[in-house]
Amino acid sequence: MKSENRGSKKPKNTQYLRDSNRAEILRYLATKGTANRMGLSKQLRLTKMAISTIVSELLEENLLEECGLIKATPNQTSSMYSGRKPTALAIPNYRINAIGIFILRYQIKGIAIDIKGNILYSTKIDLPIDTDNEKFIELNITLIEEILAANSSIKFTGIGIASIGPLDIYKQKILNPPNFRDIHQVFIGDIIREHFGLPVFLDNDMNAGALAEHLYGIAKDMRDVVYLGLGSGVGAGIIINGRMLHGSGGYAGEIGHMSIQSDGPKCSCGRNGCLELFTNTISLLQNAGVSTIKELLEEEAREPRNEIVKQCIEEYYTSILNALVTIVNIFDPEIVIIGDKGVYIVPLFIKRLEEEMNKLMFQNENQKIHISASSFGEAAPLVGAAALVFQKVFNSEVPLNV
Amino acid sequence: MKSENRGSKKPKNTQYLRDSNRAEILRYLATKGTANRMGLSKQLRLTKMAISTIVSELLEENLLEECGLIKATPNQTSSMYSGRKPTALAIPNYRINAIGIFILRYQIKGIAIDIKGNILYSTKIDLPIDTDNEKFIELNITLIEEILAANSSIKFTGIGIASIGPLDIYKQKILNPPNFRDIHQVFIGDIIREHFGLPVFLDNDMNAGALAEHLYGIAKDMRDVVYLGLGSGVGAGIIINGRMLHGSGGYAGEIGHMSIQSDGPKCSCGRNGCLELFTNTISLLQNAGVSTIKELLEEEAREPRNEIVKQCIEEYYTSILNALVTIVNIFDPEIVIIGDKGVYIVPLFIKRLEEEMNKLMFQNENQKIHISASSFGEAAPLVGAAALVFQKVFNSEVPLNV
Repeated sequence: MKSENRGSKKPKNTQYLRDSNRAEILRYLATKGTANRMGLSKQLRLTKMAISTIVSELLEENLLEECGLIKATPNQTSSMYSGRKPTALAIPNYRINAIGIFILRYQIKGIAIDIKGNILYSTKIDLPIDTDNEKFIELNITLIEEILAANSSIKFTGIGIASIGPLDIYKQKILNPPNFRDIHQVFIGDIIREHFGLPVFLDNDMNAGALAEHLYGIAKDMRDVVYLGLGSGVGAGIIINGRMLHGSGGYAGEIGHMSIQSDGPKCSCGRNGCLELFTNTISLLQNAGVSTIKELLEEEAREPRNEIVKQCIEEYYTSILNALVTIVNIFDPEIVIIGDKGVYIVPLFIKRLEEEMNKLMFQNENQKIHISASSFGEAAPLVGAAALVFQKVFNSEVPLNV
Repeated sequence: MKSENRGSKKPKNTQYLRDSNRAEILRYLATKGTANRMGLSKQLRLTKMAISTIVSELLEENLLEECGLIKATPNQTSSMYSGRKPTALAIPNYRINAIGIFILRYQIKGIAIDIKGNILYSTKIDLPIDTDNEKFIELNITLIEEILAANSSIKFTGIGIASIGPLDIYKQKILNPPNFRDIHQVFIGDIIREHFGLPVFLDNDMNAGALAEHLYGIAKDMRDVVYLGLGSGVGAGIIINGRMLHGSGGYAGEIGHMSIQSDGPKCSCGRNGCLELFTNTISLLQNAGVSTIKELLEEEAREPRNEIVKQCIEEYYTSILNALVTIVNIFDPEIVIIGDKGVYIVPLFIKRLEEEMNKLMFQNENQKIHISASSFGEAAPLVGAAALVFQKVFNSEVPLNV
């Protein structure tokens, strides 16, 4: 059974209780801000006693700090403070940190952030045209070493890697991405883990983008999220009921190869009329007769109108609308977040897109689904790479290296 | 936030541990067959002590029975039996039971089954052409009373209702299904719950179909499942990582309104080229010039060839193939299960469909996804209706009425 690749469920024993409540407290304080013990007790629906015990442990490990009294709100009575003072708790800045690596077709980007989403450092390195597996590994190591050296005073819990696909995420392996220098079949997870002695997590760039939004971005309080990356390819990272959609082999989310025109042009995947053919930015620029997105936007705004550019953008719009209606009909998310190069183009028509999508979707009477550009611009997968580590912390699946 | 409709997470305390382990034992014994304490300890990764305590409770409540010794397999040594005898445990037949109601456009079907999937009783009642809300409620009550009367010696834990949509599953309300007599805006959940004093659960027919397969059918050991109902409409029930995909408003799975032909014929939903237009059985029969599926199958097998029928089936095939490739590209399930009227037609080409789908899907090197007709024929949503109750038992969300 393929499911076995994904590890078995944790046994539900007292260790599980302790770990998961501890992790939930960290999740709350990392992603929602400060709270006092009473607030945590209410949020997690645990007794104040249970909260106090875990909080004491976390304070002792310096994973939390007390940071002043929380002011009483008008409808709190003084009797609510009769016990322990409602001291605000917070995770200290730069106390729990992760490295994120975002592998693109021509470049590797690196970031160091803390569990609250504070950015400590960011860097990047190009992949020379002749990069083979060996060189590729070397460049990854160089980049990570640079991040470690520049942040030598702090500890890192793990390294998250977001990469273009296809990947085998369960084996943490990069398979054979097209147009990816001379790089293929790289067990990136094992190699980086052995080299640095830190836990390593790999996921595809779209899933990482969705995770960044879910933990630190616009979708923070939402449980059903579609992140749609519109670039030279098209893909989606999908969060359902607070969990990433990976599929049985880790290959879920290939929205780009949804056929929207069964008698349309041939796609390299063997099908006809795949979404990606209509919404990739390379074709858009080519058809519009421009060479950069900046130029496209300038032409779009030009007076008198550049009819060709307007027309190309209109076709791009129509394909995206078409795809989005199908996507929301299938997933019924709370929000659709546009990422990758799409963050520059979609704002041209985002209000109209949201309106028409909501009108055309099947359940349009009782629903209102939002569309937004990514909170992180193009960088969502980079933030998300590091967030892969924190997600494991929040699921108590990785020990804190403190 | 819409997510709030779905109820908050349970607090992770010792009550939670006890309840969820108890429920897991019931799930295992209900869906996988007998086991001894040692086997349960291994499966649930709990100490034998923890298992023994819960098992004793369940025995005391007569929810389990001991049913003889389990034979040692060749690689078990006698020392493994030095403690308690490895007595096989089972849930007694007809000990934990549920009623399932399947609401179709022209009929209501009813079933009584036990938690192991044993069928006790089944029945149905037509919806006369002039059925309005009041009459509809009356017929549901009549049907359930019949089931209760015919099974007066046993107790029921709850009533599950699977219905054609659209529904508001969080409010347990039937909204405004098209061509549904004179029935609309029915708070079916509240009404049935108040009348019978039993917990009631509502979900759409496709989700129920998927659940039946997941708990009692071909997808028993799978965590990622797509159930595709092909009838006069088209819809899907989708299970991801062992959990139903409901979406933020409960409207997920509207596969029928996936556009596969953006310049295709107009659909009643306002879009063009929706899948449902190409794969609904009514059009298929009409185009093929036959009036029943039986006739269609006879004509298909006729010598000399009935070219029109062959052609219609070929077009039906092509549309399904097209949709399936998109679906597996998005979900990467372990299996696609065909339900509704599709169970009669799809077997004509199921091997070819599976082969071509696997070839055309984007990740075709490392994956092999199966296609199967429903284990329950057209009755999957009916079995699944009752399974809605058992799913709640397995998630320790409903008390056992014993």
